[in-house]
Amino acid sequence: MNGAEALARTLAGAGVEVCFANPGTSEIHLVAALDKTPELQGVLCLFEGVATGAADGFGRMTGWPAATLLHLGPGLGNGLAGLHNARRARTPLVNVIGDHATYHKRFDAPLESDIDALAGTVSGWQRRPLRAADLADDAAQAIATAATGTIATLIVPADVSWADGAGPAAPLPVRPPSPAPEPVLAEAAALLGGDEPAVILLGGDALRRPGLEAASRIAAATGARLLAETFPARMERGAGLPRVGRLAYLAEMAAPQLAGTRHLILAGASAPVSFFAYPDQASSLVPGGCQVHQLAGPGDDVAAALAALADRVAADAKPAAEPPARPEVPDGGLDAGTAAAVIGALLPEGAIVSDESNTSGLGLGGATAGAPPHDWLTVTGGAIGHGLPMAVGAAVACPDRPVLALESDGSAMYTISALWTCARQGLDVTTVLFSNRSYAILGLELERAVSGTGAAAHDLLDLSRPALDFTAIAGGMGVPARRATTAGEFAAALRAALAEPGPHLIEAALP
Amino acid sequence: MNGAEALARTLAGAGVEVCFANPGTSEIHLVAALDKTPELQGVLCLFEGVATGAADGFGRMTGWPAATLLHLGPGLGNGLAGLHNARRARTPLVNVIGDHATYHKRFDAPLESDIDALAGTVSGWQRRPLRAADLADDAAQAIATAATGTIATLIVPADVSWADGAGPAAPLPVRPPSPAPEPVLAEAAALLGGDEPAVILLGGDALRRPGLEAASRIAAATGARLLAETFPARMERGAGLPRVGRLAYLAEMAAPQLAGTRHLILAGASAPVSFFAYPDQASSLVPGGCQVHQLAGPGDDVAAALAALADRVAADAKPAAEPPARPEVPDGGLDAGTAAAVIGALLPEGAIVSDESNTSGLGLGGATAGAPPHDWLTVTGGAIGHGLPMAVGAAVACPDRPVLALESDGSAMYTISALWTCARQGLDVTTVLFSNRSYAILGLELERAVSGTGAAAHDLLDLSRPALDFTAIAGGMGVPARRATTAGEFAAALRAALAEPGPHLIEAALP
Repeated sequence: MNGAEALARTLAGAGVEVCFANPGTSEIHLVAALDKTPELQGVLCLFEGVATGAADGFGRMTGWPAATLLHLGPGLGNGLAGLHNARRARTPLVNVIGDHATYHKRFDAPLESDIDALAGTVSGWQRRPLRAADLADDAAQAIATAATGTIATLIVPADVSWADGAGPAAPLPVRPPSPAPEPVLAEAAALLGGDEPAVILLGGDALRRPGLEAASRIAAATGARLLAETFPARMERGAGLPRVGRLAYLAEMAAPQLAGTRHLILAGASAPVSFFAYPDQASSLVPGGCQVHQLAGPGDDVAAALAALADRVAADAKPAAEPPARPEVPDGGLDAGTAAAVIGALLPEGAIVSDESNTSGLGLGGATAGAPPHDWLTVTGGAIGHGLPMAVGAAVACPDRPVLALESDGSAMYTISALWTCARQGLDVTTVLFSNRSYAILGLELERAVSGTGAAAHDLLDLSRPALDFTAIAGGMGVPARRATTAGEFAAALRAALAEPGPHLIEAALP
Repeated sequence: MNGAEALARTLAGAGVEVCFANPGTSEIHLVAALDKTPELQGVLCLFEGVATGAADGFGRMTGWPAATLLHLGPGLGNGLAGLHNARRARTPLVNVIGDHATYHKRFDAPLESDIDALAGTVSGWQRRPLRAADLADDAAQAIATAATGTIATLIVPADVSWADGAGPAAPLPVRPPSPAPEPVLAEAAALLGGDEPAVILLGGDALRRPGLEAASRIAAATGARLLAETFPARMERGAGLPRVGRLAYLAEMAAPQLAGTRHLILAGASAPVSFFAYPDQASSLVPGGCQVHQLAGPGDDVAAALAALADRVAADAKPAAEPPARPEVPDGGLDAGTAAAVIGALLPEGAIVSDESNTSGLGLGGATAGAPPHDWLTVTGGAIGHGLPMAVGAAVACPDRPVLALESDGSAMYTISALWTCARQGLDVTTVLFSNRSYAILGLELERAVSGTGAAAHDLLDLSRPALDFTAIAGGMGVPARRATTAGEFAAALRAALAEPGPHLIEAALP
């Protein structure tokens, strides 16, 4: 068996079920290997940024890696933004990149580039097997490493794929995450038993039901406040779950959320920092006089640490449960507020929300807080163009759950061909395309940064000339689409899209 | 004046007229600086891969750099494929990337990544100014270095942009390319005077009229054969110019072109290598027993070297001139052959052709050889998705010349939002979208590589499910579009598109 087939069988044997692929000639033996490995499904993406973003969405929902298949350095480059977000999300992901044959590299053929340097910027583990016989063992290590919450990159020379003499490798055990050390639990328990204001900042796995409920018990028993990190990889929320607000994106809005805090306990989150720097503003959002304590790092068993802490300080406390509540479907015009109300009114139980709504989504948190339980995925690393690919991956991962992609016009255009993969795979993804015909967040930042800017600057943030017709674009990729200009039209379109399987797009025309 | 304004004024002062931009918050002061620098036009692209590809097309046509404006590491990642091709084309390009403020980087905010490592893979020169007062001097060096035919990258921290105390820097002189050394000219003259078969492989500036004519004189006087590199950055061709064939893409087709050659003289080209490696095939395309001589490297003054050589060995020879000739507009069905004939029949004088037609374009070389003089740009580095962005840049560079983007469906979907920039800028770009509903070149490679492949493998190369409707997609981005299914329809659509200014798209439905 050649190296490619050994790789495919090793992936499949370890439970890697999907390969999000945009292959080229140097990967052609890996493509051929899919024929012999029906347990490993190839999902074609028309752009590598869709493939990596989809692998991120898949890994977030399953906790187990999907594979990518990328074409040399330029293909990896096209996929880097998605990998950047996946790295920030600590998504398990096996990143497979084809390269020239080992003996071909010295000839500096046109597609030659420094793949290793590129991949090193996003990978937690990286290897370049040089013999077909090594490929499967390296793949088994990649999978086991990726499963701990990182990107494991395999750079596969073409001759390592095509050479014979390989065989599949057995899965390797995955190292379980570390429990919280006893002194750390004792310190946290002690300070929560004191009378100084404490905030527990939740991130990573702490934002799934077990972690949220443990944290909620702690809050109930000790008076500590709970906050979620600004851009969670995956947050379970809705009726019956503890309601936890997210730390605000803008530093001046996050500051009051943390004001007066004397102890900030990190549970799977990093110490909060401003997303961007601004003149004369601090980068750190930790208030003066506040001590930071790390209960569990992003790679630890955060939920177990919270549960252990809850058993210590909140043995008898019950977690809060958000009561079911939905907004009324509003009448009248369509704006960010009424659109959020419609989504809150109609969000189906078990929905997976891929949220790249940016400024158009400011009302969504409140409007959906009491909706039936659902998962909320965000753009963890700030690399925009991730919402549609992530929805693809979540839908492939969870074919029985409805996926709602909340997308904004500027971000959508980075990876719009994700719609085609939705159509091809028949994915139950409803895309709400918020169209405000601008990079609105940059308009905001421009006003904050510089007074008296003129036409040339604002023109660079303007998407109205010409207006993008997303119903035409989606239709051209095989996704049925409608345009809504009132709250009622939007509600009718969303009801219809959610009722019918397969992909749909609704262009929500905002003022 | 702040650093951003000093940078903008330095760029404008050195003749950098255009900035292809996809900015973000960390670049917002650079956006604002455009207001104060009307000589530097910002051209908004909806994806960084369009910005970098456009800067490549611009630099190829003007010989002087455009600037990019990219948003941190993920924005650079999105633009890397375009920069890869620009690097292979030796395009002058000033690559400006915004970064977090200097003091913000240690906080590892979500968008933090190793920009320096990423940029190092494509840049010939790279700098990260740390004080506003340094930015303009660094920019002046970047421009002068880029102008020698490389990517000069400036990584600009946000606080270096917004801090005051800066001022513009004067342009620096550009180092002229080196002439060919006397011993090299003497050696080439001697071997051309002998009776062993010689081929002159032309690349870079040798493919403009002066280089072509000098090479043609040499060929006429000495019997040396001329070939052009496989993927030229910019080749002048058509009636009145010497006709030079390109080295074939596939090694087995290139081998007979070079068979029997005893001396291969490189004039601005690299020694020929197979684009990809294949089992049991040599990487080098240099025949056994053939000596390779470098008359001029890609960065040298290739045309001058050829002229000097021609004066030595071909003082009385005249260059060949391809006679004017156009195919008839064919009747009947539309296929790659009839489409090429239509294009050959209608190609306007002075056209700039951005060619990413891949397998659909195999007949184009012959069909357009005798068309009125035109420029032909190709995807130099093999990173696909470059044809439409390159057309944008060429059209911005040469507003008085018609641009013809010959694009294939698979490649088009990488950077399809380039159409929107065509519409926004009113660019006279006619896009011919060859739709064969497959990654046809990979189907060819799959058959070459592996016998008996099945449905799963071929499915990964299939774009027919669903079919992409490029007229809808183009229309959604403001570009008028028609679909042609016969040679006559294609000719009518192409005539109409070429007759009317502004962007048009014709979907050429191939079998």
